[in-house]
Amino acid sequence: MPRVTIKEIARRAGVSQGAVSYALNNQPGVSEATRARVLKVAEELEWVPNRAARQLSAARSETFGLVLARTAETLTEEPFYMGFVGGVESVLSQKSYALALQVVADLDEELATYRKWSAERRVDGVIVVDLRVADPRIPLLRKLGLPAVLVADPELSDGMPCVWTDGTAAMNAALDHVASLGHRVVARVAGPPEYGDVWIRDRAYATAGRRLGLDVRVVHTDFSADEGAAATRDLLAAANRPTAIIYDNDLMAVAGLAVVHGLGSRSPEDVTLVAWDDSTLCRITHPRLTAMSHNIIGYGAEVTNRLLDLLNGARPQAHLYSTPLLIVRDSSGPPPV
Amino acid sequence: MPRVTIKEIARRAGVSQGAVSYALNNQPGVSEATRARVLKVAEELEWVPNRAARQLSAARSETFGLVLARTAETLTEEPFYMGFVGGVESVLSQKSYALALQVVADLDEELATYRKWSAERRVDGVIVVDLRVADPRIPLLRKLGLPAVLVADPELSDGMPCVWTDGTAAMNAALDHVASLGHRVVARVAGPPEYGDVWIRDRAYATAGRRLGLDVRVVHTDFSADEGAAATRDLLAAANRPTAIIYDNDLMAVAGLAVVHGLGSRSPEDVTLVAWDDSTLCRITHPRLTAMSHNIIGYGAEVTNRLLDLLNGARPQAHLYSTPLLIVRDSSGPPPV
Repeated sequence: MPRVTIKEIARRAGVSQGAVSYALNNQPGVSEATRARVLKVAEELEWVPNRAARQLSAARSETFGLVLARTAETLTEEPFYMGFVGGVESVLSQKSYALALQVVADLDEELATYRKWSAERRVDGVIVVDLRVADPRIPLLRKLGLPAVLVADPELSDGMPCVWTDGTAAMNAALDHVASLGHRVVARVAGPPEYGDVWIRDRAYATAGRRLGLDVRVVHTDFSADEGAAATRDLLAAANRPTAIIYDNDLMAVAGLAVVHGLGSRSPEDVTLVAWDDSTLCRITHPRLTAMSHNIIGYGAEVTNRLLDLLNGARPQAHLYSTPLLIVRDSSGPPPV
Repeated sequence: MPRVTIKEIARRAGVSQGAVSYALNNQPGVSEATRARVLKVAEELEWVPNRAARQLSAARSETFGLVLARTAETLTEEPFYMGFVGGVESVLSQKSYALALQVVADLDEELATYRKWSAERRVDGVIVVDLRVADPRIPLLRKLGLPAVLVADPELSDGMPCVWTDGTAAMNAALDHVASLGHRVVARVAGPPEYGDVWIRDRAYATAGRRLGLDVRVVHTDFSADEGAAATRDLLAAANRPTAIIYDNDLMAVAGLAVVHGLGSRSPEDVTLVAWDDSTLCRITHPRLTAMSHNIIGYGAEVTNRLLDLLNGARPQAHLYSTPLLIVRDSSGPPPV
């Protein structure tokens, strides 16, 4: 594609190249009629400012990077990521920044991606999700000097800039809710324990269970619908079965509800179900699911704004984005008598 | 971050710069012991080939672009996109290509994104989704000379390279299925009629309905769970209500099932439900949903491979990726007597 030049616009508009430059840069020195004519010609020719040239001098890629170390299957199932990406994009598109998205198999590939991006100066900074306990990405990002904002509790971020939601307060609210309904035997279908968010919820769940004098149990899964369904089936088949189940994501809660129905049981009459994240899924089941709700799109936007601030010289710090809010719906009720 | 140089690796490995170059480029001229030592030092120093320099000469960005003109809310709800992006990524990550993803409000912003990407040479090519009837993106992409593969039926692509699934055959299979169960009054909860895929399904649905002698009706929606639920409610409240409903996506089918349950009705005893796309959602409801199934991850991968082929000089053409396959599950049954 031939580039549209100032010279070509000047020729077509019948004015000098200087006049075109004034008009396009919105500077005084040309009449309004000339400015209008130049802008019209520029638009017809699909003219765009030569940002590539500006970029070379500014040494900025105007691109943020996001690596997701999950299988394509998990990403398809899990509503969280697309919402988060949508939130990131809602900020970047305003700034004319691009998002480089890379889906990789595991953390090793994620580390390799950061090395490559850094060496090739492909991104100005990265957003890091799914923090692990003692996450190996933190020392690498420090070594590379690659600006980063972690989506993680400050307990996990080792002093790196981070944006977080208060998982401990949320778990307290979830257990207070089921205890206040009268439930004494409660289970949680959790994500993998090596994920930092799950680790924080594990601790909060045990602590709140003791505080409330509940019989609490946990089954760890890989966050998938299949494992969520299997865990629910096992829990409901056990002696002294739980009358309330808290899930670490939406998808497993929806799968758990189907297991309840498949057993000929009902929610909330036989079992109270509480989901996490509160995507649309929780509102399109029957009964609609009680959930710990947070604004995932807003969360993605917040993280992106903090990374922009960081690149503009802001002091690295931890930002509490929100505390998830309990939304009580039809799947909550007292335990069966 | 200081760049790691050949000189620094040579110094640390205690060999000449020439030897480092031979070792790193996997050329003869150094012993295996030297090669191993050089590679070890290079790895310790986080050395990566200077692709940025190679890129400038090759004038390739090694980036593909994908614009999604949907709200962040819709993207969160709709499992299709994340699966498609996962499939695109599964190919790009093998090739060390990046994906530039942009979420925009509407087609005008999408057109502006292509202009910008083209002018700034940010992407080598683009993948275009959600084709409209007489889509304005086609003439723009031609004018810009930006390589593109459309995710669209050849009827919609105006001769541009495209990858498609056979919506007409799929709709025939869906209607044959419900007719063979004995249903005579059938409804379809469809997407927006300006979408090319919906337009093709609209035509196939009307034709197959006439062929089978069915009473067929259509309600167009915006693909959202809310409108899918509202359409289901209206259809089931009507006189001569349908005994089978076909949905244009999964999300609306799940929302429709909740409406059926909310009315105290059951599927398939009172109404047969057929979903489209067959994401995980269809397998985690109770009853599990019959669906037109296609491999969305594989579809994303196929489109990406065709765009790579195009950049490598392949002749532009239309590729039939697949015909969606009917997966019969528990939500299918004969009409109530």
